[in-house]
Amino acid sequence: MSDTTRIAPQTGTAFLLRKGETLRISDPLGEQVSDLLAFAASKDGSAVARPLEWLSSGRSLDYAETIYLTTGNILYDQNSVPLLVITADTCGRHDFLLTPCSPETFSIIYGNTEYHPSCYENLWRNLAVFGVEPHEIPTAFNVFMNVQVDGTTGKIAVLPPTSKAGDYIELRAERDLVIGMTACSAEMSNNYSFKPIDYRIIPAE
Amino acid sequence: MSDTTRIAPQTGTAFLLRKGETLRISDPLGEQVSDLLAFAASKDGSAVARPLEWLSSGRSLDYAETIYLTTGNILYDQNSVPLLVITADTCGRHDFLLTPCSPETFSIIYGNTEYHPSCYENLWRNLAVFGVEPHEIPTAFNVFMNVQVDGTTGKIAVLPPTSKAGDYIELRAERDLVIGMTACSAEMSNNYSFKPIDYRIIPAE
Repeated sequence: MSDTTRIAPQTGTAFLLRKGETLRISDPLGEQVSDLLAFAASKDGSAVARPLEWLSSGRSLDYAETIYLTTGNILYDQNSVPLLVITADTCGRHDFLLTPCSPETFSIIYGNTEYHPSCYENLWRNLAVFGVEPHEIPTAFNVFMNVQVDGTTGKIAVLPPTSKAGDYIELRAERDLVIGMTACSAEMSNNYSFKPIDYRIIPAE
Repeated sequence: MSDTTRIAPQTGTAFLLRKGETLRISDPLGEQVSDLLAFAASKDGSAVARPLEWLSSGRSLDYAETIYLTTGNILYDQNSVPLLVITADTCGRHDFLLTPCSPETFSIIYGNTEYHPSCYENLWRNLAVFGVEPHEIPTAFNVFMNVQVDGTTGKIAVLPPTSKAGDYIELRAERDLVIGMTACSAEMSNNYSFKPIDYRIIPAE
């Protein structure tokens, strides 16, 4: 098992995850969201495959028949090919409805027009190394994000994460993947306190 | 106002919608879904703009703070730029969670491995004329699709549309757009009966 890597508050990273390896994402202090993206990798792992094969919230929700994905559920790409399988989950509440926070998120929702770190920027800057362009960033799988939906009115509420210190989720790669991950930068999503995110890569069995 | 155009059951179309024009989508017989996509158009309207500016369910749901978009809500692209505004809606129940039905939808959900018409095919074949590639088809705004979410468990249920014969929705273009539309091909989404969809383009005021 690799050492644990820490993603500093309001930053992100990108790396290669080989088929069969398992990514464990941990919330070391509790109540911290991590936006996760996955793209099929090129054969030599130096870039994303073209045409781009990207994580699809719509396909994944459709096949899972739930908005709350957890152990046993599959994250599909837009062509209905499995990218990741959730193999463990001590939290059980993650969001797959909303996009990575971006400068526009802070201006439209928070009324903040000053510079603000964002998952969008932290994803595209790190994923650019692997050939992903900013306009290609799709809806992320928002690990530990607590988005509630009122089943009658449809109203969406972003609540503090239910994750406690040490909670984790494990996802096994079904293909060679380029992964993008953040420690989320949005106030409301993280109960107004920015914390790190830890991850480690567990080798294929 | 243009004449009404009819989309035959289990087919689709694509066309240009100019800034300020309003698209009225009608359900002439009731209980029929229409998958809607929008992309920013190139200056001469012959193709989609590059880099691609595509309808984003994640951005739109985030800003609307509801999964049930209706009159007054805005459909955004991935860069948080408004593409369409809903200006009228006699139905009030549309889905923005699930992807266009595809061959894989029918094999994974319905167990049908024979050829089956699909919104995915009807969208990409018609949108190809405007330069959209199949792998670029995002989550659609599924007009008249009745997807219920259990707020406690997160469970998704695809129910018969609540639309009655003559129900319509109107969407005003905030930019020059390439529109893709279908009369949906999936059994469950349309209460197991395939019907046409009508649309007309209302000029800018």
